[in-house]
Amino acid sequence: MRIVSLAGGIGGARFLRGLKAAAPDAEITAIVNTGDDITLFGLRICPDLDTVMYTLGGGINEEQGWGRADESFTVKEELAAYEVEPQWFGLGDRDLATHIVRTQMLSAGYPLSQVTEALCARWRPGIRLLPMTDDRVETHVVISDDQGRRAIHFQEWWVRLRASVPAERFVLVGADTAKPAPGVLEAIHDADVVILPPSNPVVSIGTILQIAGVREALEAKTVVGVSPIIGGAPVRGMADACLAAIGVETSAQGVLELYGSALLDGWLVAEEDAGVALDGVVVEARPLLMTSLEAARDIAAAALDLARSLREKKEAARGAGTGRGSA
Amino acid sequence: MRIVSLAGGIGGARFLRGLKAAAPDAEITAIVNTGDDITLFGLRICPDLDTVMYTLGGGINEEQGWGRADESFTVKEELAAYEVEPQWFGLGDRDLATHIVRTQMLSAGYPLSQVTEALCARWRPGIRLLPMTDDRVETHVVISDDQGRRAIHFQEWWVRLRASVPAERFVLVGADTAKPAPGVLEAIHDADVVILPPSNPVVSIGTILQIAGVREALEAKTVVGVSPIIGGAPVRGMADACLAAIGVETSAQGVLELYGSALLDGWLVAEEDAGVALDGVVVEARPLLMTSLEAARDIAAAALDLARSLREKKEAARGAGTGRGSA
Repeated sequence: MRIVSLAGGIGGARFLRGLKAAAPDAEITAIVNTGDDITLFGLRICPDLDTVMYTLGGGINEEQGWGRADESFTVKEELAAYEVEPQWFGLGDRDLATHIVRTQMLSAGYPLSQVTEALCARWRPGIRLLPMTDDRVETHVVISDDQGRRAIHFQEWWVRLRASVPAERFVLVGADTAKPAPGVLEAIHDADVVILPPSNPVVSIGTILQIAGVREALEAKTVVGVSPIIGGAPVRGMADACLAAIGVETSAQGVLELYGSALLDGWLVAEEDAGVALDGVVVEARPLLMTSLEAARDIAAAALDLARSLREKKEAARGAGTGRGSA
Repeated sequence: MRIVSLAGGIGGARFLRGLKAAAPDAEITAIVNTGDDITLFGLRICPDLDTVMYTLGGGINEEQGWGRADESFTVKEELAAYEVEPQWFGLGDRDLATHIVRTQMLSAGYPLSQVTEALCARWRPGIRLLPMTDDRVETHVVISDDQGRRAIHFQEWWVRLRASVPAERFVLVGADTAKPAPGVLEAIHDADVVILPPSNPVVSIGTILQIAGVREALEAKTVVGVSPIIGGAPVRGMADACLAAIGVETSAQGVLELYGSALLDGWLVAEEDAGVALDGVVVEARPLLMTSLEAARDIAAAALDLARSLREKKEAARGAGTGRGSA
């Protein structure tokens, strides 16, 4: 079976690990958000790609959810001793080597998708990781504070300000001209099912959906999403601050409507959110807290089961025997 | 008093520390070799500038003579885990921050001389450090081995091969067009005396002398050198391998003749090398082993005393009272 999943950082990474456990023989392709990418100290940093790569490759700091296990911060301390900014970014020594290799390869002319493949040769995540685009796309956040109204990089808003200053809107710099990375549209086209993990629906999934051709390709497939909102609150992260910026209610219903029935065929919500509904989308209620690898696997298995059954129904409706086998 | 000193790495750095102790009130400018500089992993590394900066700034690994005290090698281990080359360069975590700041500033358009000044704002070496040039100049070494006759970067010959393969010759890539860094010729012009520390006469001092205008500017000054060779062997490092490549005997006499009387006014040799002589150069024999800061200070003081007395004699010979005061 061929599965495509979009992904942001921590939530997406943990879900993908569950998905791999739920479907160990499937060909899984993760299309990963790169809107959070940032260049700091001359190094190109791809937080979401790295979080997914480390999580599936066994190198993640499990407690924290991002960054490397057994990490040290010597270089960061030394940079601070030089009084260079920014000092708010958690740049670990082990993690730094990834950024150095990536930056060097990018400077040598390799596109990010090939760089990612090279890095994965070490980490062997067991799934195929594709950046959403090889082009530079960066999420900026328009805020108003004592320095006036201005746009800052998403990382500064998210990490330094912890989303404490309201986002007025998000500007995806470069998105209007960015092309999907090689393999992205092909993977979606070839997929039996597509799963949207409980990643941030605005700045992770929402960003990927803005890359030319991606939304259209997904709308042609059987897509099941997992709600990132349980009982009116984000499972983790600060998705509420992002949803507020685009005028969407922080609820399983709000995100369902944001994605819409053109994109979604199925929607998994937490048991307490049973009752959420949208015409054209099959909603199922399940325990959705990814408290362990097993819990993530069960959620992924539920999403996958729903997607397969919806796909079979679709094919049956179209007339028997025209599609590729679903198993 | 204004003193100019040329300098390579470890020997030059330790001598400069002694010079600063011997003349605490002097304005000392060190013109530092950059022919050893190398770009590794996309980072610009200036081994001699860093060794001088760390040594005078209190950050050096004293035992080793280069690199940072209390150093760790996490990033290097991680780079090796990615199987990226080269793995023979001793890239420490603390040291790495210096290379990151330097590379970022260079990329932003600052010349190396300004970058060096910015780095020294942290280290406060107490003397002025100038790279010999802001232009890219790199010493390459022509060798013949089982891969045939080829030129490799000096660092590869020095660090990876430990100068075990004979150098056929040195090629200073970029030297023909390199200009002295801002301040270099001015510092020499304004100097009361110039001291050549016991740095490598071929790939450190010899390299600096190849930058346009430097040798000529020095020849107009009172210059005293300290022999890097004691009793036919280099005090440290592998200067013999470098001298052999240019057909110069590894001896205090050989290096004296290499520098020549057009450049040198005085030459300090070790007591066992008493007898070394060259027309037009005053030779003095002294203990020359820099076994401690005090020993380095005493050697520097002797070089300085000799230089001052030679300068006074020169001025007296030219007719009294025309020069700047020598104290």
